Amino acid sequence: MALLESIQDPSQIRALDNAQLEQLCAELREYIIACCAENPGHIGASLGAVEIAVAIHHVFHTPEDKVVWDVGHQAYAHKILTGRREAFKQNRKYHGISGFPRREESPYDAFGTGHSSTSISAALGLAVAAQFEGKHEHVIAVIGDGALSGGLAFEGLNNAGSLNADLLVILNDNQISIDKNIGAMHNYLLKVTTARRYNKLKKSIWDRLGAGRLREWLQKQVKNTKRSLTRADGETLSLFDSLGFRYFGPIDGNDIAAMTYMLGRLKEIPGPKLLHVVTTKGKGYAPAEEDQTVWHAPGTFDVETGRRTGKKSEIAKFQEVFGTTLLDLARKDNRIVGITPAMASGCSMNILQKEMSERVFDVGIAEQHAVTYSAGLAAGGLLPFCNIYSSFSQRAYDSLIHDVALQQLKVILCLDRGGLVGEDGATHHGAFDLAACRPIPNLTICAPYDEAELRNLMYSATQPDYGATIIRYPRGYGEGTPWRDLPFSYIAPGTAVKRHEGNGVAILSIGAIGTKAAEAVERASRENGMEVLHYDMRFLKPLDTAALEDACTRARRIITLEDGTRIGGLYSAVAEFIAARGLDCVLTGLGIPDRFIEQGTPAELYAECGYDAESIYRELVKEKF
Amino acid sequence: MALLESIQDPSQIRALDNAQLEQLCAELREYIIACCAENPGHIGASLGAVEIAVAIHHVFHTPEDKVVWDVGHQAYAHKILTGRREAFKQNRKYHGISGFPRREESPYDAFGTGHSSTSISAALGLAVAAQFEGKHEHVIAVIGDGALSGGLAFEGLNNAGSLNADLLVILNDNQISIDKNIGAMHNYLLKVTTARRYNKLKKSIWDRLGAGRLREWLQKQVKNTKRSLTRADGETLSLFDSLGFRYFGPIDGNDIAAMTYMLGRLKEIPGPKLLHVVTTKGKGYAPAEEDQTVWHAPGTFDVETGRRTGKKSEIAKFQEVFGTTLLDLARKDNRIVGITPAMASGCSMNILQKEMSERVFDVGIAEQHAVTYSAGLAAGGLLPFCNIYSSFSQRAYDSLIHDVALQQLKVILCLDRGGLVGEDGATHHGAFDLAACRPIPNLTICAPYDEAELRNLMYSATQPDYGATIIRYPRGYGEGTPWRDLPFSYIAPGTAVKRHEGNGVAILSIGAIGTKAAEAVERASRENGMEVLHYDMRFLKPLDTAALEDACTRARRIITLEDGTRIGGLYSAVAEFIAARGLDCVLTGLGIPDRFIEQGTPAELYAECGYDAESIYRELVKEKF
Repeated sequence: MALLESIQDPSQIRALDNAQLEQLCAELREYIIACCAENPGHIGASLGAVEIAVAIHHVFHTPEDKVVWDVGHQAYAHKILTGRREAFKQNRKYHGISGFPRREESPYDAFGTGHSSTSISAALGLAVAAQFEGKHEHVIAVIGDGALSGGLAFEGLNNAGSLNADLLVILNDNQISIDKNIGAMHNYLLKVTTARRYNKLKKSIWDRLGAGRLREWLQKQVKNTKRSLTRADGETLSLFDSLGFRYFGPIDGNDIAAMTYMLGRLKEIPGPKLLHVVTTKGKGYAPAEEDQTVWHAPGTFDVETGRRTGKKSEIAKFQEVFGTTLLDLARKDNRIVGITPAMASGCSMNILQKEMSERVFDVGIAEQHAVTYSAGLAAGGLLPFCNIYSSFSQRAYDSLIHDVALQQLKVILCLDRGGLVGEDGATHHGAFDLAACRPIPNLTICAPYDEAELRNLMYSATQPDYGATIIRYPRGYGEGTPWRDLPFSYIAPGTAVKRHEGNGVAILSIGAIGTKAAEAVERASRENGMEVLHYDMRFLKPLDTAALEDACTRARRIITLEDGTRIGGLYSAVAEFIAARGLDCVLTGLGIPDRFIEQGTPAELYAECGYDAESIYRELVKEKF
Repeated sequence: MALLESIQDPSQIRALDNAQLEQLCAELREYIIACCAENPGHIGASLGAVEIAVAIHHVFHTPEDKVVWDVGHQAYAHKILTGRREAFKQNRKYHGISGFPRREESPYDAFGTGHSSTSISAALGLAVAAQFEGKHEHVIAVIGDGALSGGLAFEGLNNAGSLNADLLVILNDNQISIDKNIGAMHNYLLKVTTARRYNKLKKSIWDRLGAGRLREWLQKQVKNTKRSLTRADGETLSLFDSLGFRYFGPIDGNDIAAMTYMLGRLKEIPGPKLLHVVTTKGKGYAPAEEDQTVWHAPGTFDVETGRRTGKKSEIAKFQEVFGTTLLDLARKDNRIVGITPAMASGCSMNILQKEMSERVFDVGIAEQHAVTYSAGLAAGGLLPFCNIYSSFSQRAYDSLIHDVALQQLKVILCLDRGGLVGEDGATHHGAFDLAACRPIPNLTICAPYDEAELRNLMYSATQPDYGATIIRYPRGYGEGTPWRDLPFSYIAPGTAVKRHEGNGVAILSIGAIGTKAAEAVERASRENGMEVLHYDMRFLKPLDTAALEDACTRARRIITLEDGTRIGGLYSAVAEFIAARGLDCVLTGLGIPDRFIEQGTPAELYAECGYDAESIYRELVKEKF
């Protein structure tokens, strides 16, 4: 990797010729593969985008010229080329570098990303600011075709297409997000890329017309209709031209020579323009090219064989419990349908999809639509289970309030990856869901303690006492408690479970993090002879006030525990209960503190935030009085 | 209005002939104008959409066939025709009917609306549900061109265009939302509607080609490229065709004969289709046609003269304070820019726009983009003031967390219409902003007590101690305190103001609702000789803990007051303070209770929610101990 190692600064890339650039791309690939084999990451998208990154740094004067990488896990080559080659070995690790671009990390990261579809809006802001300040900077947004289905991307296109800012959007079209892309935009792009025949046809029409007067007349007419629906060059107006962008492409985005040539030309063209490049996700690593969904983020693997080496667990993930239970419920109730914004495999809705594909709607990356569409389905008499990752559901906040809760439409919104998610870091932690949803009227909000409770809450939510319901659970493995094929057991809304009898100190937990409380309570009993009262609240709304009264009667120290922001959620709910009654209790809240938490393993992050089992134990036995 | 009065049921409309339908439209217009002259409403949009409503009920079998009215204030004719003719006199009044479609109100309101851009997603849900249940229902979404810039509308189109549900989208193109529409989509629609010349050209090309072999060959080729970028009929592919919709139009949406003819034809065509109709906002009432922005919602007026009869106040609205102050600040600091999602006149950013149009970005109805774009501008070195109506800002929740707060980008987000807004009702109350924003790290959150405080907070937020900041204030008039041309006075973050000395009982208020607390405190002193401690907290975050300590030391009864949901905002913050310290205080929270509040005057709604001056007074003097 002599060439890659010689790059100390991206400016050196500008001097390389095509053969060297090709070599650099090959070395980058090798390096990314080697690093990700040992230290898991989003390998697929980044392998596909190597030439894009190299071409940008070759053609443009970064960091004065700015690039915004949509979502950002396609940006590994960019990170490696911009002073983070060694640091990349600590990609996504605690105190290592983020798996996404971050402004704090490098001046080459012009704008932080993580959630999809933000890049065009952000890049437009950068471009307009540069214009304001009289700087002649180029600003580039690199966005995947999957991210283009997000409404925010459209809003950005719509605004950018009516301004004259120098903005280049590179549409990195690999036809796949995590699962296969869907939607009309996807179909459109597919048409465009398969329309070579069409392009040839157009050319042959002109050729056929010869050099006669008819051709001249036609050309003149076409010229005159510049302002109408065809472009001056006779090309049919593309969707992007309709939106005020000059459209170029499609070209092969894994062809470094083509990429540098095109970017060089586009650099000279002012105004908003879009370059459509077709790439292969996982490019250059055969196993990743072959199964792109699995290789989106495959975990560790053996480079030679492509065998994935991550440990398999006997224990099920909450995702599997969700997916299997949804199928079980759908078999019993044909009103049940599943809605996912592009996360069918991530949330395991593909389990239902495999059996009853007509009952699952993958709406693409479109969280607002996922929820409002679910509300429409509910208004039409169906019983939708809509599953969204907690942090992405922030996009659907208004849809939840305005379309679901206000109308009391029975949508069962399952928030996956609630709480600290680990290696994906600050943008992906499901920190705010409980706090943000608690003020919304008409919602039942619950979080299961373990696999069986998830299963039973999903079942219970289908029953008449439940209206619009939020079921929130974490990423990853459960506790290994039995759940499969368990007969469904009804849980009434607002009912807590006493997990341990005790006095003096009470801990009130919500969700699966409660298992850490149980561990700490057990240890306090064993090591300190201290019996702590432990309630698994299960419901944030309605609150089990009888349980709270019991806790506040029998304990003066009350501790709340939630895998979410301390402000606004269970801690606040219990604080309101105590303060409104003027109870003689002292409340301590364990949860995510009032700052953004970076990446690390969940264990590292729980410890940092003070709610791993050890910290909880210390809090329980702390002599405060 | 004999014909209108004879309509007891929309099914009667199906039997009418064109002349009668025209008569019905005229009577509807007359009735809407007469009612709105006395009882203010959104007259402009509804006058423009009269023929759309009549044509739908004439052609389709409502309510089995379903119509979803985007935003919904275009739906007055629909409401009047569907059993609410008399009730319409109580439009937007307390205990009257809502100004928007509501499912609870009528089976003809298939889906409630209020916020823009939801209709396609909701209608798709209804259509797919009908398909599931084997019903042959037609589902229609009526959406304005302004609403089409909202990302949610695009997400809906993108999904619908790839399914085969029978969905008809009527694009009601009046080229204006409240202010003139902008954006690339707007430009595109303008091109389409002015492209008659182009259509003629296309025809003349074919004519010119004659009947010879060239023509035949071309036609055959065109036929063969069905799957490519031109439609089979030789028409250029429209943007909507690109998205999987069959596009029809544009036609005159105020021509009832054309409308019924087209809808009749479209009824027979399966799959997703879009009818583009051009209407005139305010149609049929000259003053409203002439000044469409003012006549969006003009207040009361004299029908004969078109003179608006609403009382003019000497007192300024908070909106004027915002707009004027923004201009004052922009004059002093050329980094300052204004961003509004289509509310330049509503929020008074047009004051800055008039003086320095290059400093204002109206991004169209696109709240997510407004915030992420602002973050981009801030990353580029500008100082953006982004103004969004509180309830609409729910759309930008993720942008605020992910793009602004996480990156600590200095965006000053001014949330207009925070708290109960009055006649627009449940969808428009700014109830959730304080509660939803409090858990977000890195934000300063404040709410001014009066005009001068708004002005000074806006100024202070530009100073270095402030990072990303939320300034939240209500709709409408202030207290008449002097503010214009006041020299700016710096307010340090997290500092409360003592408004009244007292003991025993303390009231902690945030925002302009604090003036009602002051009134009640004054009355308790006067009538009961009771001196209540009153703090205007000003900041929800950071909290002034010294003020809280003072209050909790000097009073056992603590009352919080906020014009927002009681759960999660100031009430919760103070509860946390009390409970965490185990203070011997009893807390009462005044604010919006945990249910959705319908329409009425602000005074009626404050009373209903228990925080008008009278209720506050009663709470102060209540003998609880």
